[in-house]
Amino acid sequence: MEKRNIIIDCDPGHDDVMAVLLALANQDRLNILGVTTVAGNQTLEKVTNNIRKLYTYLGISTPIASGAAKPIIRELITAGEVHGKSGLDGWDFPEPSIELDSTNAITFMYEKIIEAEGKVTLVPMGPLTNIGLLIATFPEVKEKIDLISLMGGSIYAGNVTPYAEFNIYVDPEAAKIVFDSGIPIVMSGLEVTHKAAITEEEIEFLKQTDGKVTKMCGELLYSYTRYHHSEGYTSYPLHDVCSVMYLLHPDIFEYKDLQVEIDTSNGIHRGRTAADNRQWAKYERPNTRVLIDVNREKFIDILFKAFAKLNEMCK
Amino acid sequence: MEKRNIIIDCDPGHDDVMAVLLALANQDRLNILGVTTVAGNQTLEKVTNNIRKLYTYLGISTPIASGAAKPIIRELITAGEVHGKSGLDGWDFPEPSIELDSTNAITFMYEKIIEAEGKVTLVPMGPLTNIGLLIATFPEVKEKIDLISLMGGSIYAGNVTPYAEFNIYVDPEAAKIVFDSGIPIVMSGLEVTHKAAITEEEIEFLKQTDGKVTKMCGELLYSYTRYHHSEGYTSYPLHDVCSVMYLLHPDIFEYKDLQVEIDTSNGIHRGRTAADNRQWAKYERPNTRVLIDVNREKFIDILFKAFAKLNEMCK
Amino acid sequence: MEKRNIIIDCDPGHDDVMAVLLALANQDRLNILGVTTVAGNQTLEKVTNNIRKLYTYLGISTPIASGAAKPIIRELITAGEVHGKSGLDGWDFPEPSIELDSTNAITFMYEKIIEAEGKVTLVPMGPLTNIGLLIATFPEVKEKIDLISLMGGSIYAGNVTPYAEFNIYVDPEAAKIVFDSGIPIVMSGLEVTHKAAITEEEIEFLKQTDGKVTKMCGELLYSYTRYHHSEGYTSYPLHDVCSVMYLLHPDIFEYKDLQVEIDTSNGIHRGRTAADNRQWAKYERPNTRVLIDVNREKFIDILFKAFAKLNEMCK
Amino acid sequence: MEKRNIIIDCDPGHDDVMAVLLALANQDRLNILGVTTVAGNQTLEKVTNNIRKLYTYLGISTPIASGAAKPIIRELITAGEVHGKSGLDGWDFPEPSIELDSTNAITFMYEKIIEAEGKVTLVPMGPLTNIGLLIATFPEVKEKIDLISLMGGSIYAGNVTPYAEFNIYVDPEAAKIVFDSGIPIVMSGLEVTHKAAITEEEIEFLKQTDGKVTKMCGELLYSYTRYHHSEGYTSYPLHDVCSVMYLLHPDIFEYKDLQVEIDTSNGIHRGRTAADNRQWAKYERPNTRVLIDVNREKFIDILFKAFAKLNEMCK
Repeated sequence: MEKRNIIIDCDPGHDDVMAVLLALANQDRLNILGVTTVAGNQTLEKVTNNIRKLYTYLGISTPIASGAAKPIIRELITAGEVHGKSGLDGWDFPEPSIELDSTNAITFMYEKIIEAEGKVTLVPMGPLTNIGLLIATFPEVKEKIDLISLMGGSIYAGNVTPYAEFNIYVDPEAAKIVFDSGIPIVMSGLEVTHKAAITEEEIEFLKQTDGKVTKMCGELLYSYTRYHHSEGYTSYPLHDVCSVMYLLHPDIFEYKDLQVEIDTSNGIHRGRTAADNRQWAKYERPNTRVLIDVNREKFIDILFKAFAKLNEMCK
Repeated sequence: MEKRNIIIDCDPGHDDVMAVLLALANQDRLNILGVTTVAGNQTLEKVTNNIRKLYTYLGISTPIASGAAKPIIRELITAGEVHGKSGLDGWDFPEPSIELDSTNAITFMYEKIIEAEGKVTLVPMGPLTNIGLLIATFPEVKEKIDLISLMGGSIYAGNVTPYAEFNIYVDPEAAKIVFDSGIPIVMSGLEVTHKAAITEEEIEFLKQTDGKVTKMCGELLYSYTRYHHSEGYTSYPLHDVCSVMYLLHPDIFEYKDLQVEIDTSNGIHRGRTAADNRQWAKYERPNTRVLIDVNREKFIDILFKAFAKLNEMCK
Repeated sequence: MEKRNIIIDCDPGHDDVMAVLLALANQDRLNILGVTTVAGNQTLEKVTNNIRKLYTYLGISTPIASGAAKPIIRELITAGEVHGKSGLDGWDFPEPSIELDSTNAITFMYEKIIEAEGKVTLVPMGPLTNIGLLIATFPEVKEKIDLISLMGGSIYAGNVTPYAEFNIYVDPEAAKIVFDSGIPIVMSGLEVTHKAAITEEEIEFLKQTDGKVTKMCGELLYSYTRYHHSEGYTSYPLHDVCSVMYLLHPDIFEYKDLQVEIDTSNGIHRGRTAADNRQWAKYERPNTRVLIDVNREKFIDILFKAFAKLNEMCK
Repeated sequence: MEKRNIIIDCDPGHDDVMAVLLALANQDRLNILGVTTVAGNQTLEKVTNNIRKLYTYLGISTPIASGAAKPIIRELITAGEVHGKSGLDGWDFPEPSIELDSTNAITFMYEKIIEAEGKVTLVPMGPLTNIGLLIATFPEVKEKIDLISLMGGSIYAGNVTPYAEFNIYVDPEAAKIVFDSGIPIVMSGLEVTHKAAITEEEIEFLKQTDGKVTKMCGELLYSYTRYHHSEGYTSYPLHDVCSVMYLLHPDIFEYKDLQVEIDTSNGIHRGRTAADNRQWAKYERPNTRVLIDVNREKFIDILFKAFAKLNEMCK
């Protein structure tokens, strides 16, 4: 089986870390060309530091490149209240010693894509600023990107507003570039990510399990759930993990193929991923595979096995 | 049982006529203070003429007042392609001889509401221009309106655009006034009205039945369905009927109580009735009862009995 | 010479009071059908109270009707920082004993216009909410309104924002109805009203002059200028006075006839009165006479003579 | 005297060509690092071909790089009706033999700026797409750009709409990035460019003059004026020339230093370069030097001497 070239674009963020770990554990199937960062869950400086800390702790080294510090035309909004002051509270990482790539995320992606044998899949987990700038600045990459498997959006109900999901809301112009690009998109929006949830018992299990990675994940997720906890949750969405999981196990997801467009107005629907749900719309050319459900048990089982595998790899 | 005071605000329109007939057949329960007209399905002149033609044909006379010829600030859009050139193609009505009330719809409603014993229910079936102007010009009516049971909007998918329903799209500013007014609203949006559909067999049955009203309804609906027919439908939504039916038989409907607001931007979501669907939003104060399903068989049965009753009344 | 029928729609407000006084002193030429109030400089309750207090103090009684308490679709913004807590700080008025008309401002205007012999001129000095609702609800009045001489807007630079003037900014939808109505408009925008300014010496002169009205005006204007004073002004615009003055002495003004439209977006230009200034636009049909300059000395002289005349009338 | 490093970003376009020629004739003072192209007056393919044709005809070779084929998020609008089918109708150029730089305009600018000794001045004459993407993708360039001398915008009246100038209207999001960047801007908007006009007599003089460049300019400008001619003009704005001329002879211009921001809404003011004109705004930090007048005779004289100098250089 051929390995899929991927670039992960993230803003870690607790769930970003879980998603990156899932990819790292599956390098027999995923050829990770690099990880790029973007301001979102926290400032660019913090999220970039977080991925460097993770890599330093794991002793792993795929290239890392730092990207956009703010949305294309808007001011940055972060989600510090969800991911804590550092953007990755809950584990005591060593000081990062991994160096960044000398170029920025957009140029980095461009070069990796152009140089790659075969096509490349982008896996964005934060605001789409880097990807939007990549496509706008280097439109020739469109022919070499076979898929964008992104975490973001929602077709039913939002989180940062009643109608919009955080990643898209933060940079709707970037999202518009991506969704209008013609590149095939798999969208892990809130419909599916709220089903890809981990329970308190499962988190407790991780915490109690030995292993460099598993224990860390337990502690990080425990910290992450403190925010949601206060809202009465007893299970917690692992949003970003879906975007990687789909590449590995598309069969555990349900989806609809829809035409999705982005609201870039300043009205009440700013940042909504609008999908044409009309019954008779089914005959039009969809641009997006919207994931709507997942087999939660299989999802968690696969993820935990990935952690266990990394325990061995990163000893 | 106390009779409910109602004012019907409509833009007939085939389904408007069915809704008016349902009300006329139930005057033991509904005290029809009047019928007002508004530009929407067709121009004000045409829709006003249509209700006058219907009343002349039936020999019935509740007061009729003519209202707004265009939305509050936007240009008028009509739905001539759905309801035909006259707005009510399909039956050969006599020339109208019924006179209009000397005042306009907004003043008419104001006076009827202020004079009424007890509270009044408004039943709008077209763009909300008249109702919006009523509330903005005479805010004191809010205390005497117990309910607005309107046809319009959708929380899942639109018709005139993928996200907006025709009545709200045509005059979003009027809709904003109504939904922000604090008056309790029952919204028969596309979710329920597409379930309140009549089949081709049922229409054929009406056409084949003797009776001044039943036969007319059969012919009107047959004409109405010619438009939808070309889109591959085999049953046809009786949108406006829901707004009256709910007043008579609320028990045959399912609903959700939601907070609904209107998009008045010029973005892609113009005229969307945005509802906060988030799971944790359930604790907030909803302003709207959104009907989402109906027992179709009971719905049709009640409507057909109303037609039969009118056959006798209007001989 | 025939008298001109006028209705003054105001939100007093210090300069509103000066404008009303100018009209009251010229009843040989202006037939004041009534004064209506609208929320703007202060809440509806306060501005209505202010005009009642003025009339009670003067012992004068043209009809007064109270209008819209908020803009058509937006929330109210007031200018309490300019006109003080009462909206008319600076003079110790008696408790008001004048009664309000039993109908609201919109119905009042409608009836006065329909009943009037000949045409009527509207003189709005606040947000255009009442006038917009009048035109939207009773479009037949358009044929009997010969002119709307309004204070509001600006074609060069705003006050509440860099681009928008307060009255238009507060209710842009109402303004859009007015400017799109086809009724001839004379617009006293900031270009001319900033030239219709009174000096500190002139205010001091009023304060030092005996006379029931003159002295009051001196004290009110002294209070009014305290706000502008802190911005380094030494003369103070009598905005609203222009709208009445133009009716009496159009010859002291300079103007351009332009096509003006209103920005109802939520962008940076919300509420701007956009005028097509292009050289080659001069051949299009203008809807607005935009006043751009005034002979200040004549303006002040006429105003002071009006105060003196009222001293006699209101002894 | 130190030479100023410049990069010209253009969409030729007749006036673009005149501006490029002015720069080429003054290489003793301007170090032209390259010319980049952007879709605007015509499609990217056409405008890029036009600059190549010009260079081939002149036998000149500063590097040329091709940039954005469309605005950052909007669809492209061109001005084919002004510049003709080719975007540069009126002269029979040879087939272009000049090669393009292997990288795109954004990367090209980035590299030239980073490599440059000292700072670089950007001279954009089309939509700001390339410059916007440069700043968004490589924000570090901001410290090495000393000035952006651009043709675009207007503070009084537009051309493509009554309020917006073509270059800014086409890509308002790109313009917003540029004006919000903090980089000093000199804006040659319509106020000054309409004064930087050439007369029919002057064009006729160019046509009648021998010289490889002068004659070509006469014919190109004669063709260019055919469009404006039909609108009753007798002199014709050389818009883009101002942006280069200011670098050479700032003393022949008058200007105001203002705070300028961009309307990115879809309302009537889309693409307006809004400047705070309020009297009391003079104390705020301006981001833009807005040119408002020019000594036309000196402007034309300098331009004609540049053409004459190029006649010699390009024999």
